[in-house]
Amino acid sequence: MIAAPARVGDAFEAIDTPALLVDLDAFERNVAAAQAHVNACGARLRPHGKAHRCSTIAMLQIAAGATGVCCQKVGEAEVFVAAGIADVLVTNVVVGESKARRLAALGPRARVAVCVDSLLQIEQIASAVRALDTHLDLLIEIDVGNRRCGVDSPGEAVDLARAIAAHAPWLSLRGLQAYHGKAQHLRSTGERAVAIGKAAAQAALIASALRADGHECAEVTGAGTGTYPYELASGVYTEVQPGSYALMDLDYGANQRDPDAPPTTYALSLLATVITVRCGHAVLDCGHKSVAIDSGAPRVELGGWRVRGLSDEHTVIEKSGEAEALAVGQKVRMLPGHCDPTVNLHDWIVATRGERVEALWPVDARGASF
Amino acid sequence: MIAAPARVGDAFEAIDTPALLVDLDAFERNVAAAQAHVNACGARLRPHGKAHRCSTIAMLQIAAGATGVCCQKVGEAEVFVAAGIADVLVTNVVVGESKARRLAALGPRARVAVCVDSLLQIEQIASAVRALDTHLDLLIEIDVGNRRCGVDSPGEAVDLARAIAAHAPWLSLRGLQAYHGKAQHLRSTGERAVAIGKAAAQAALIASALRADGHECAEVTGAGTGTYPYELASGVYTEVQPGSYALMDLDYGANQRDPDAPPTTYALSLLATVITVRCGHAVLDCGHKSVAIDSGAPRVELGGWRVRGLSDEHTVIEKSGEAEALAVGQKVRMLPGHCDPTVNLHDWIVATRGERVEALWPVDARGASF
Repeated sequence: MIAAPARVGDAFEAIDTPALLVDLDAFERNVAAAQAHVNACGARLRPHGKAHRCSTIAMLQIAAGATGVCCQKVGEAEVFVAAGIADVLVTNVVVGESKARRLAALGPRARVAVCVDSLLQIEQIASAVRALDTHLDLLIEIDVGNRRCGVDSPGEAVDLARAIAAHAPWLSLRGLQAYHGKAQHLRSTGERAVAIGKAAAQAALIASALRADGHECAEVTGAGTGTYPYELASGVYTEVQPGSYALMDLDYGANQRDPDAPPTTYALSLLATVITVRCGHAVLDCGHKSVAIDSGAPRVELGGWRVRGLSDEHTVIEKSGEAEALAVGQKVRMLPGHCDPTVNLHDWIVATRGERVEALWPVDARGASF
Repeated sequence: MIAAPARVGDAFEAIDTPALLVDLDAFERNVAAAQAHVNACGARLRPHGKAHRCSTIAMLQIAAGATGVCCQKVGEAEVFVAAGIADVLVTNVVVGESKARRLAALGPRARVAVCVDSLLQIEQIASAVRALDTHLDLLIEIDVGNRRCGVDSPGEAVDLARAIAAHAPWLSLRGLQAYHGKAQHLRSTGERAVAIGKAAAQAALIASALRADGHECAEVTGAGTGTYPYELASGVYTEVQPGSYALMDLDYGANQRDPDAPPTTYALSLLATVITVRCGHAVLDCGHKSVAIDSGAPRVELGGWRVRGLSDEHTVIEKSGEAEALAVGQKVRMLPGHCDPTVNLHDWIVATRGERVEALWPVDARGASF
């Protein structure tokens, strides 16, 4: 593991760069506001660990009232369970005998659930769970508009529920995974509300079909930072899975804010150093090996300067008006476009309060995509 | 460190996914062809470690005749020196007292050089090197068309050379770093040849100015996979720094090939699993947390299918004509758009020969961007 770019107690200026910072005051406000909102709706908050891949953050979210954590990959679940997290949901379909065995091995150690959308998966997971004489909960992933994984008809869901029931008591159906990823960044509150209205109606329809066929469907889970107040308002969802709300990024910051939604602040930033100053442009010591660009370039927090472009290890910035003077060696903050893949580029999160390093958090599930 | 997705001796089908594969036959051909070409020109090949961040690959390149390795970051240099590589060039300007100290600490352990383009850096590095009573070589980075770091006039270069000379014997001027990054992916051979012709002329002009002022300028180094035959042909460059040639990617594959340039084959691929098959689309278990998309989407090696889009952990593929039938659980290869940031997402390279795993190479400088 790469060494941390700072030490606890360091002043801001002593942090080596590029370094990923979390402002603790902002982070704590974000976590508390979302938790209070979900509590007030009588639902459960299961923050998404894909956004931070950091068991320390997951533990802080659970300490604030979250019901557990969710993640996208078996590798992430392994890290979170090893860190002592007792309730982990893999919000993704998982295929392959090796992965089924790895999941089953978590069964005796935590309350673990995983999503399915095909009979093959159910058979692979059942076989692995029976071999270890353990237990896993399954959720049927349904496609509520994402057009990716998941079944989209009540009939398909019933077929899967019957196949799960045939493997009792090793497997149980916990309910439905109904995440609408494409709705998260619809910019207007109206578009997001409409998309989630349709998603909730479809989830309710499929849940009814399962119950009519004699299956329990205790949980309907899904939602992200952009929409979870709408899933909660629908009354259909019992649990929500926002992830980015704790750290935030420019892409979520660009959404029109619903006045009823919990407020969020940018808690995540990348600290960089000016390495070259030329006539009209300057260069920072970070590129897209340190900050993800899948949702656009980061923003430089420097009056009168904007990002011209990034390469692997450099960001070129240029003047855009009345520009602050820049000197070689000066430290600069950048706000990432997308927090999830940005955190995944780093081994350490430097947790700061004011201008001082308060903690170093290992990104212990970084790279755990398999 | 995340566990490896395969074991030595595994058949192809036993590899867990997503996994980064290197086809050893293709890799060895690429390495040998480039080395033979550079040798025939009477120059030195210093492969760029930014492309692979893997000391095992660097050692294999050195065993094939390379003069050492280059890298972009002090963190990478630390990993390569720790792995026993005796000659490391940081092809980037490095700013900050902490980084200068870390560089100086490498001085007694290997032949290490770094680039400068400002007086502040020279003072920082000199101070660190004197404190340890060791030695570093410096190269003046010049801007030969990249419009990023580097000075672009003979006068500025002479000022830097004088500042370096003032710190003899702790610092020595080795020569010029003259890399034209923007020329690498100019698609036609003609455009690349013209761009490098200008770069070489500027490097020659600045080298003459340094010599006229009494400085040695033994080395002119630079070049990448897209252009290095032109730098060699110029007679100005003594050393070339291609990196991607060993692994290759779609972005370099899209360049018009110079018939005189060494041939290259795609050696790098990402192995993925089909997790969902729906009407008209299917989903793979890898997204842009496993394959970089800064230079475009990866290509799926599957007749009649093309990539519709990637999210963090999923790739959606769709039919584009006469499509092969796909089944859940099937393994699929993808060719990355850009090798450097793709390798940086992985802890392990699975080195295969034919359909069997021959070796597991740790990406030991993964994440070493600081």
